[in-house]
Amino acid sequence: MKILILGAGNVGRAIAYDLSKEFKVFAGDKSEEQLKKVKIFAEPIKIDVTNFVNLVTLMKKFDLTIGALPTDLTFSIFKAAIKAKCNVLDITSVRNDPFTFDEDAKKVKITIVVYAGFAPGLSNILLGHIYSKLGILDQAIIHVGGLPKRPRPPLYHQVLFSPSSLLNLYIRPARCIKNGKLIKVDPLEKIEKVVLKKFKFERFITDGLNSLLNTIKANNLIEFTVRWPGHLEKMKILKELGFFKKENLDFTSKIILPLMQHDSPDFSIMEVYGRKDKKEIRYFIYDEAQNGFTSMSRVTGFVTAVIARLMLKEKLNYGVIPSEFFGMNIKYFEYIVNEIKKRKITLKQIK
Amino acid sequence: MKILILGAGNVGRAIAYDLSKEFKVFAGDKSEEQLKKVKIFAEPIKIDVTNFVNLVTLMKKFDLTIGALPTDLTFSIFKAAIKAKCNVLDITSVRNDPFTFDEDAKKVKITIVVYAGFAPGLSNILLGHIYSKLGILDQAIIHVGGLPKRPRPPLYHQVLFSPSSLLNLYIRPARCIKNGKLIKVDPLEKIEKVVLKKFKFERFITDGLNSLLNTIKANNLIEFTVRWPGHLEKMKILKELGFFKKENLDFTSKIILPLMQHDSPDFSIMEVYGRKDKKEIRYFIYDEAQNGFTSMSRVTGFVTAVIARLMLKEKLNYGVIPSEFFGMNIKYFEYIVNEIKKRKITLKQIK
Repeated sequence: MKILILGAGNVGRAIAYDLSKEFKVFAGDKSEEQLKKVKIFAEPIKIDVTNFVNLVTLMKKFDLTIGALPTDLTFSIFKAAIKAKCNVLDITSVRNDPFTFDEDAKKVKITIVVYAGFAPGLSNILLGHIYSKLGILDQAIIHVGGLPKRPRPPLYHQVLFSPSSLLNLYIRPARCIKNGKLIKVDPLEKIEKVVLKKFKFERFITDGLNSLLNTIKANNLIEFTVRWPGHLEKMKILKELGFFKKENLDFTSKIILPLMQHDSPDFSIMEVYGRKDKKEIRYFIYDEAQNGFTSMSRVTGFVTAVIARLMLKEKLNYGVIPSEFFGMNIKYFEYIVNEIKKRKITLKQIK
Repeated sequence: MKILILGAGNVGRAIAYDLSKEFKVFAGDKSEEQLKKVKIFAEPIKIDVTNFVNLVTLMKKFDLTIGALPTDLTFSIFKAAIKAKCNVLDITSVRNDPFTFDEDAKKVKITIVVYAGFAPGLSNILLGHIYSKLGILDQAIIHVGGLPKRPRPPLYHQVLFSPSSLLNLYIRPARCIKNGKLIKVDPLEKIEKVVLKKFKFERFITDGLNSLLNTIKANNLIEFTVRWPGHLEKMKILKELGFFKKENLDFTSKIILPLMQHDSPDFSIMEVYGRKDKKEIRYFIYDEAQNGFTSMSRVTGFVTAVIARLMLKEKLNYGVIPSEFFGMNIKYFEYIVNEIKKRKITLKQIK
């Protein structure tokens, strides 16, 4: 079984670390520096993914390709997968509908698993499970955050994944379901206080539901991302004044991203909640940076690695599969939860 | 008596309007468009003030030059005044010490009146008067604001004078006297609520005291500028994040200045307060845009024009004179207050 990981950043490295214990793993990236950091876990391959022909040629040699690149490259990988007839597992929160590849994937008999990181990813799996237990939900709420343990003023946050994906959270209209209707809201329109575990956060609506908007029947379905107090108000003001407009974004990034680049250890927190009538199920996830891995790369990469194992060991359907389908299958769900816990990520059902 | 006004912007035009009733007035500006707007009140002269030789040659022909240009040009005018032996009256809140010109001005027998607009200007005159009545003050406080009557989100403010001078208010450390000591504070460090007349404003400390820091003996001396609620917090955040740093200011200006350019009529408000023991004196000033003049240009330009009249009619000392000296002389003070009232600017002493 040969596995190719595209993207040798923090998450790609965590995936490589995990899968290298059992499989022969290769990691592709255009940056030699990134490749150096991953090479104890994976055979490095220098590749520019934007060169489509090279990408197809490379992917032909593998049983499974894992996409761990920024979201704007996701569709190129799917197109190459069809050409190369290579199974794919992708971590990104790609917004363009990945199900447009479903027919072609079935035709060439490959499986493309999408939204397979932390959120989207583990959030989808847990909500998929809750849905399979309770049926059509009155309310389904995801709270998620990847945060610095020692937040620093003035922005009290830290860049933990692709900066463009980070800024997109504040910019792109967030889809959610309210009273049975799909609506789009400005993510920063409403900033609310929320307590998770012992932490006092602020939350805003984010556009991370993606496939869940179609696969989970719920009267109310919403994803909130949480931040330390003091962060969101500032982002809101920048947005309101026009600093996040396309033509201003490069300049604004140069000013604010350095304020969010510091070396605090990070932690990840998530709560996935579903309710039908008086029955409710609530999952809580918590993790901290350890053993040289940021928590963000652990919770994303390890979930991906566990799903990769399922893809390699189980006979999955062809076509495009969103990660929540693994949550709806009790055997797969129990396997994933068990494997996640083995990796010292706190995952528990709470009252 | 020939008068030259340098700067044919809103304020220059108001000065020209006022003085043209009695004198032959000329207006110099590098912009033909600006000159067109002033030409019913003044003979237009196209001149680039940064050409020092041309400036001296021009000023030689006049009895009085009035500086109504952005503050970074003020010192060039003073230098040219010495060369041309021409009296000068300046409206700006120039920070570099204008008294460095005192000796040279005395030598060539000219008078340079500085800080002669609204604030600094009328504020200095009123505080000078209060000081001459009460003596060394326990407390002296100026509140001043030029504001849109119909504030618009997101910034609830309007550019009413030179944009660089406006932004400087938020940037340059503000000098004030606290418990007898001269201190410098970040203008946006503290944002406080304040009620003036019936209006609910927010205030911040601004660096407009200039010469008053030396001429008025007070245990506490402070200038606040007022804004509509919602404005200052946003400016504070931009400053805190680094958007007002020198290298970012041009870009930031391009984003925020258009948000403060709209056609609401403006109004001006000021309160000048002094207290010694149980004796206190409080002046209140209010004005609105009218007859095609913004209120900001009225309250600045008309004060300047009234002081210009004093300069032309009275035998003043040579050297550099800050406007508060007119407030300390009862004859000049009464003349100025009287003339201000004639111009339909509300000016009253209140309990």
